[in-house]
Amino acid sequence: MKLATVEIITVGNELLDSTTLNTNSHWLARQVTRLGGAVSRITVVGDDLGAIAGVFQEALQRQPKWILCCGGLGPTFDDMTLEGVAKALRVPLQLDRRALAMLRQRYEQLVQQGVLQEVKWTPQRRKMALLPKGSRPLKNPVGSAPAALITWQSTELVCLPGVPKEMRAIFKESVAPLLMRDTVGVYRREARVQVSAILESNLAPLLADVMAGHQGVYIKSHPMGMENGVAHIQIQVISTGTSPEGTESSVQWALRKLTRLIEREGGAVTPQTG
Amino acid sequence: MKLATVEIITVGNELLDSTTLNTNSHWLARQVTRLGGAVSRITVVGDDLGAIAGVFQEALQRQPKWILCCGGLGPTFDDMTLEGVAKALRVPLQLDRRALAMLRQRYEQLVQQGVLQEVKWTPQRRKMALLPKGSRPLKNPVGSAPAALITWQSTELVCLPGVPKEMRAIFKESVAPLLMRDTVGVYRREARVQVSAILESNLAPLLADVMAGHQGVYIKSHPMGMENGVAHIQIQVISTGTSPEGTESSVQWALRKLTRLIEREGGAVTPQTG
Repeated sequence: MKLATVEIITVGNELLDSTTLNTNSHWLARQVTRLGGAVSRITVVGDDLGAIAGVFQEALQRQPKWILCCGGLGPTFDDMTLEGVAKALRVPLQLDRRALAMLRQRYEQLVQQGVLQEVKWTPQRRKMALLPKGSRPLKNPVGSAPAALITWQSTELVCLPGVPKEMRAIFKESVAPLLMRDTVGVYRREARVQVSAILESNLAPLLADVMAGHQGVYIKSHPMGMENGVAHIQIQVISTGTSPEGTESSVQWALRKLTRLIEREGGAVTPQTG
Repeated sequence: MKLATVEIITVGNELLDSTTLNTNSHWLARQVTRLGGAVSRITVVGDDLGAIAGVFQEALQRQPKWILCCGGLGPTFDDMTLEGVAKALRVPLQLDRRALAMLRQRYEQLVQQGVLQEVKWTPQRRKMALLPKGSRPLKNPVGSAPAALITWQSTELVCLPGVPKEMRAIFKESVAPLLMRDTVGVYRREARVQVSAILESNLAPLLADVMAGHQGVYIKSHPMGMENGVAHIQIQVISTGTSPEGTESSVQWALRKLTRLIEREGGAVTPQTG
């Protein structure tokens, strides 16, 4: 079983100078994981044409099934993601009539709502309909800039806006249904427990032991520090498989075995709450 | 004036499957920005030796002044950041006596505190003292795994643990003082205002206008959505320069000019609170 790999690229100086916490990549990673895909890399670059083109070129060379990008689709001078994608793919930017129609509909709505007086086609507005040749625009149900979907060799590349509400709406409406075609029949199950009174260096060989007994199980430990001289560690037991029952039983088997080993070493295991 | 560029690399499957929000890279980006450096890229990769070695090779090719990495220094099988760095640099991993002494001190402390019964040198504990040849270990004042600093051509590469408390303590104690040498004499000033009753597509040419009048000023707009038919946008005015007064006056100049232009278009500008 091979999981569909997904790279996430987020664009924006505000993510590099820590003005904005990158919740977009976190949200996207959660959706991909829930849908049965595997995020293989997350990259953040700034509003710089060369850096944007470079990050897409590098990602395409690794041939992930999907590249999900967000940020840099708006009307300002520093929104240059689509120009960067065009440069990476060596295709021109073209005025897309479908994208233009989506924008017209949006601005007419804003005129009706009294937000705008009239729809003027300024260069900044037309800019949002300039897509790399070969793109398909995806409707933005809650904002202006449409998203763009481009198939490049074996990779589906999607550019979403950086405004979280818009990014999420387009992902749910237009991207998730397509992504799910690549993850049909993949099931992921996960359990978390808290382990205490054992150091991570003593826990390490026990984890290796359990994993050696079952190929489909992956166990990850996250040390949470000491409290009153007692070490606390969070443990994540993950299994990915082709049937929900088999995947669940793998997780349960690993949990039972791990609990036995930890208790034998004097540690305590409690289900994670909250 | 050329800012010291910094790349941040965070390692861990838990960041890719959205178990953990990547607050480490956010915190590091904030420190670097405050110290006058410029984060040029943030990358997240999983616990995979090939992916880790690859991300370091790519970053070194871009020749940033610093690479700050966190995650993957612990005792478990999937802590393989230092092995990945060694692979990227084509140097062997070596048992570092200074790192071993730091670990011994830590474990003796834990014995005194009654957390451990005795210090046994298991392979998992020795593993944390295996550093790429040429590294300098940095003391971990609040945990076990020491950090490692490696100078490679013109780049300083630091590997920090992923436990936030440990990462922050080592950064403050050992990394910030070194990083500051590369950012001496660089001042960054920033002001934020809220703009309302103007669409981003109408604001865009005004921003470009202000920036065209002053090379040292960068203005970024973040659309915050509509409320009762009124558009809200957050504006960030940033200047970086070689004197605190000059940098501050550039920001104030840009703010005054921008406010005039926005008000002429019927928009409202208010200082950002909170």
